[in-house]
Amino acid sequence: MDTSRTTAAMRLALELARRGTRGVNPLVGAVIMDAEGTILATGYHRGAGTPHAEADALSRLGTLDPAAAQAATMVVSLEPCNHSGRTGPCSRAIIDAGIGNVVFAVSDGGKTSGGGGEALRSAGLNVDHGLLEAEARDLNHRWFTARAHHRPFTTLHLAQTLDGRIAAKDGTSQWITSPRSLLHAHQVRASVGAIVVGTGTVFADDPRLNARNEHGEPFSTQPRRIVMGLRDIPADAALKADSNWEQVRTRDPYEVLALISARDIGHVLIEGGASIATAFLAADLVDEIFLYQAPLLLGAGRNSVGDLGVETLAAARRFRLDPIDGEAVRLLGPDILTHLEPLPAETGTP
Amino acid sequence: MDTSRTTAAMRLALELARRGTRGVNPLVGAVIMDAEGTILATGYHRGAGTPHAEADALSRLGTLDPAAAQAATMVVSLEPCNHSGRTGPCSRAIIDAGIGNVVFAVSDGGKTSGGGGEALRSAGLNVDHGLLEAEARDLNHRWFTARAHHRPFTTLHLAQTLDGRIAAKDGTSQWITSPRSLLHAHQVRASVGAIVVGTGTVFADDPRLNARNEHGEPFSTQPRRIVMGLRDIPADAALKADSNWEQVRTRDPYEVLALISARDIGHVLIEGGASIATAFLAADLVDEIFLYQAPLLLGAGRNSVGDLGVETLAAARRFRLDPIDGEAVRLLGPDILTHLEPLPAETGTP
Repeated sequence: MDTSRTTAAMRLALELARRGTRGVNPLVGAVIMDAEGTILATGYHRGAGTPHAEADALSRLGTLDPAAAQAATMVVSLEPCNHSGRTGPCSRAIIDAGIGNVVFAVSDGGKTSGGGGEALRSAGLNVDHGLLEAEARDLNHRWFTARAHHRPFTTLHLAQTLDGRIAAKDGTSQWITSPRSLLHAHQVRASVGAIVVGTGTVFADDPRLNARNEHGEPFSTQPRRIVMGLRDIPADAALKADSNWEQVRTRDPYEVLALISARDIGHVLIEGGASIATAFLAADLVDEIFLYQAPLLLGAGRNSVGDLGVETLAAARRFRLDPIDGEAVRLLGPDILTHLEPLPAETGTP
Repeated sequence: MDTSRTTAAMRLALELARRGTRGVNPLVGAVIMDAEGTILATGYHRGAGTPHAEADALSRLGTLDPAAAQAATMVVSLEPCNHSGRTGPCSRAIIDAGIGNVVFAVSDGGKTSGGGGEALRSAGLNVDHGLLEAEARDLNHRWFTARAHHRPFTTLHLAQTLDGRIAAKDGTSQWITSPRSLLHAHQVRASVGAIVVGTGTVFADDPRLNARNEHGEPFSTQPRRIVMGLRDIPADAALKADSNWEQVRTRDPYEVLALISARDIGHVLIEGGASIATAFLAADLVDEIFLYQAPLLLGAGRNSVGDLGVETLAAARRFRLDPIDGEAVRLLGPDILTHLEPLPAETGTP
């Protein structure tokens, strides 16, 4: 194995991985190269329900004679999976393709999905791993965190003024952000399996909580609507429009995520209000934030984020622009959208 | 006069004006065209101490015979000035060049600088005005406001977390923003005639308040350092390093700006702290904001902006990205800088 060529292929696999979108599944890229290091095919994972990176690359690979397949190497940024989800196990697909060598960057480690490397070895393939492992782990660091805690990948929606307010002194809050921001927020809703709001939001705004397109029409698939909190919500609450909702009688974000996992939902959007957002942030359960800022100052009224238990500046919760998002800061009409993820702990102060 | 060609020239003049930077002087662009509408020269104002747009355009104009000059038209986005500041009066320069026609978009209206149109008319030139007046007024709307109130153009510096905090619960605040943001803030300092801080900032941070380059060395010209507030500041305060400072014993932002105007300073930077920023914002005395946001959440601690007297969302202070700044939202290391100006009142809800 030519190390520099394999490293270059892994860099390309990581680059390809970044084309995906965050959610249920990790970002993964794959490169198939021949014995001379010539790239034969590439692939990446485009999101839940689409082929894994390895399968994507294999589907783009022309016919190889058995000797050429045996000499080829699959370079992939994550250990090939070993289980049948919505797609078949990648370990089996690689074996069936007759590929002789596999190099992956970081182990999967999942209870059901892990073990692909071992399966490949047992089938007689040469398997190596750990190449650019730090980069590969960094790329999906919050996905690994969510996985390790057996909870869904968690996206937080924050919509506020420039000075971090979500309501004026008299409580008025609709609409701080613009129609363009609301449309984006609906597109995010359409990409998740569940949406969480607190009972306070139900009483204050009575949201329908469905995902609607620019014409106000619901998308064909809708996230499950989850209300958390102890109070009974009104019998005629708009979010009760159909049966795809439930209330979790708790203020504990862990309990809410456990329920969502039990429903086999892998990606959840926390919509608010502020006390719900604060509870998830305080528990470090937020894997990404979409922060919508309207170009307003209120100077008073409720803050978007409440007490996180942070006493001193050095303990502030640190984020970074999502490095896979080429538009991590973008304009939505008059508003500014910032796409953030928690800074990896090992990175320390930026 | 061919209206469509003159309008096109005025649009170009407005485009050129946008290349300038805000401050003491308005943004102005100028286009000189011949009788057929062919553009002979263009110019714009690059900031205090540099030629006015008309002079800039005239300096780029080749030699014209008297008849050609008489047939030419100066198209300029603001009424040519009629007074000698750091540059001579533009009305005189246009007359001396023998230009026969002037079209300007919006009247100057200044006590000393205004009257250029009348001076040109008295000298026998054909003078027209009001072409694209709304656009020209919008471009400098806060400069006109500052001018009308005989006060300096006022820039506000805000540095905060994503949730609008400027200090943690225990009061720690240095350094929320990154060295890249601090460097930018020093470049802004270098561009103004005075900096204002409150006594609280002096006690809390003991800033030198000079403008320093990336090597930490002071720029050759320095803004005047103004402390506002009633308390005596320490005898050894760092900002007392030389005599280019003074204290204004008031909490009233109008008094501070009146003093700065009396010092013949036309551009001031309000650095804080929060109560000072709030006082200027509440009085609608802020003409532009540089908002530095560090990718942190604190969830508690002091807010960047205090009570503005805004009771309800509809009364929120509304801003827009500075439309002349091609990088009105930009990244400074890990931070996000947003360059804002108050939304013109007549624009209403964006």
